[in-house]
Amino acid sequence: MTMTTSIPTSHHDLLDSKFATIATIGPDGRPQLSEVWFLADDDTVRVSLNGQRQKTQNLLVCSAVNLFVLDLANPLRYLELRGNAEVALDADGGFADRVGAKYDTDLREMDDPGDERYVVTIRPRRVNAVDLSAE
Amino acid sequence: MTMTTSIPTSHHDLLDSKFATIATIGPDGRPQLSEVWFLADDDTVRVSLNGQRQKTQNLLVCSAVNLFVLDLANPLRYLELRGNAEVALDADGGFADRVGAKYDTDLREMDDPGDERYVVTIRPRRVNAVDLSAE
Repeated sequence: MTMTTSIPTSHHDLLDSKFATIATIGPDGRPQLSEVWFLADDDTVRVSLNGQRQKTQNLLVCSAVNLFVLDLANPLRYLELRGNAEVALDADGGFADRVGAKYDTDLREMDDPGDERYVVTIRPRRVNAVDLSAE
Repeated sequence: MTMTTSIPTSHHDLLDSKFATIATIGPDGRPQLSEVWFLADDDTVRVSLNGQRQKTQNLLVCSAVNLFVLDLANPLRYLELRGNAEVALDADGGFADRVGAKYDTDLREMDDPGDERYVVTIRPRRVNAVDLSAE
């Protein structure tokens, strides 16, 4: 295990993964987890969330967040990114389109009329890069 | 999404998975995640943890836990189990041996001399069975 503030090169490939698990803190102080798409720019990771989702509401109240990127081909290897989420309205849907381009889909087709999109930005304060298969 | 208190048959196969992501609440109130082995008996899930690990220490202080079982072959499908963890000393290592039998390994070989093993029992209060690929 390597606990740092930046993502070690040994785990950089995981930033190109398609899926990550996001953990937020619910109104009851308990962890809530779900699977999300994400985009990475260097060590900064961003997620596009529909404002109606519980995880979005959680982050607007408590910014503590954890993004967990598992190597699906080797689940003994993963990246845990701990930090605060900056939540900003994606008013023109520009960020949703950037995420959509990665996944070759239109995120806003999943939304109901009137739903708003948010950009959730995570700049990790603690990075936990694990590879138990290498130990 | 189906939010229930028992695990629907559509997701029962995931209880035979080898890996799950466990989320605990750290001393700073933030979520901490790591990958663990587990054993399922009906809707009750148990994990064997070394007492020295931060997640074990977290659970001894705050019992709120979330076990997230991802279908590694289809990450749009997963099971989220929310509940309280009951943490008990595995004094004779009997439970560690049961987990070891599932994984064909000896968990206690990973421990340092003097380390203690704990049985973490999760009886889900809320079950979130997701299959976005079916929607």
